Amino acid sequence: PEEDPSLPKIYVITPTYGRPEMIPELTRLGQSLLLVPRLHWIIAEDSYNCTDIIIDLLNSLGSPYTYLLSPMPKGYREKKGAKPKGVSNRRAALDWIKEHGNDQDVLYFLDDDNTVNVKLFDEIRFTKRVSMFPVGFIGDYRVSSPIVKKDKSLDFMIVGMVQKIAVDMGGFAVNVGFLREHVNATMPYMAGYEEDGFLKSLNISLNDIEPKAEICTKILVWHTKTSKNKPTSVNISKHTDDNIIGLVKNMKKLTVIK
Amino acid sequence: PEEDPSLPKIYVITPTYGRPEMIPELTRLGQSLLLVPRLHWIIAEDSYNCTDIIIDLLNSLGSPYTYLLSPMPKGYREKKGAKPKGVSNRRAALDWIKEHGNDQDVLYFLDDDNTVNVKLFDEIRFTKRVSMFPVGFIGDYRVSSPIVKKDKSLDFMIVGMVQKIAVDMGGFAVNVGFLREHVNATMPYMAGYEEDGFLKSLNISLNDIEPKAEICTKILVWHTKTSKNKPTSVNISKHTDDNIIGLVKNMKKLTVIK
Repeated sequence: PEEDPSLPKIYVITPTYGRPEMIPELTRLGQSLLLVPRLHWIIAEDSYNCTDIIIDLLNSLGSPYTYLLSPMPKGYREKKGAKPKGVSNRRAALDWIKEHGNDQDVLYFLDDDNTVNVKLFDEIRFTKRVSMFPVGFIGDYRVSSPIVKKDKSLDFMIVGMVQKIAVDMGGFAVNVGFLREHVNATMPYMAGYEEDGFLKSLNISLNDIEPKAEICTKILVWHTKTSKNKPTSVNISKHTDDNIIGLVKNMKKLTVIK
Repeated sequence: PEEDPSLPKIYVITPTYGRPEMIPELTRLGQSLLLVPRLHWIIAEDSYNCTDIIIDLLNSLGSPYTYLLSPMPKGYREKKGAKPKGVSNRRAALDWIKEHGNDQDVLYFLDDDNTVNVKLFDEIRFTKRVSMFPVGFIGDYRVSSPIVKKDKSLDFMIVGMVQKIAVDMGGFAVNVGFLREHVNATMPYMAGYEEDGFLKSLNISLNDIEPKAEICTKILVWHTKTSKNKPTSVNISKHTDDNIIGLVKNMKKLTVIK
């Protein structure tokens, strides 16, 4: 798409980790993001080593990206119970944006298995502090959304969340200058409290929140989940003179075959 | 993308049916297809009535499409056991293509939950008879693929299928002229035999098959599956003066809320 350099840039932060569905997920998400002008994709992988197939995909998509390695600290990885997934990744991306972004730019967290209607990016591009909007397929109500009322001054006021569910990670966007103003802003290593903790560290009040997506009545992003495929092992000893050797080699890179 | 009218058109045939994930699935697939020049998307819904949210989505995507209603015949719908899903849809699309397509054009079946790397369309665009290529996430081998050997004339020959699994619906593309030459070609109403039955009705021999995707060593399409979200019912009697009424109204259209 054509690039207007005066347009605020949108940084999309996508944590990822190795599994058979990783490349398909990044492929379909990345293809959607190609439709959006002035978008910079930050892929932060939970890994100590670069993964060639991610780099190959990003290069073949051909749009601006930054690829970060951001492994979960060992202490959390070895902890029992719910782990703070993606926190290390998102922290690394926040640090990168604070160093490289402009104050007018905007950041948005988008997991690799989520589904986004690219019209969302028109909604959030001019975020002054924090935009919020509904996310589909969350909890008993099948949605996470701010509750928005008109107030006397005819602006809109967020009065709470549907079912008092925490804001979902895909349910808000933040202005980079606003992030910078809050030097201690960070995401806590606490499973289930990542979003709330981050927003609290930004010290936001209800007046800072800009309701988007037709005053939080439309769903432009969904927390879709993809069924997992277990890596398998196969015996290819019979295939000495055909394509299966090459196919299996490629499937091993995808971690579909052990 | 720029359109070269001499380029063969690709007809992508996508059967769909009403469920909470329908619009997210069509959104992310449709966004990927927007990247492909000379592509015409045929969405055939298993329904007796037009679904406004599909038409709205297709119009907002803004690329060429045809929307067909093609309900499963009542006899099959009421049958116990595995149903021939999507057959009526694909038959309707084949009829439409036979009437409107040009002989140089190509058709490809792509379910709404599948993941495609758009490079696949470069591979299949000049299909002379039938192209074949691997599909990820099928069966014990996690792939459906032709087995391809070099033969004496240094062309390639397909000698079978990995694990003798039937060809997957997303694993082949057909030239429209070749389809027309086979006036009795059709897809049978037989669960699990749809692909094989269709290819047999095209009377193809091994010499008709063109192996694609680097001689069937790369996976450019995956049979991903999305977890289902059950429609829920909600009590919104408390929400008389906020956005939740409008949000729930939109979620009812999506069939996410009953």
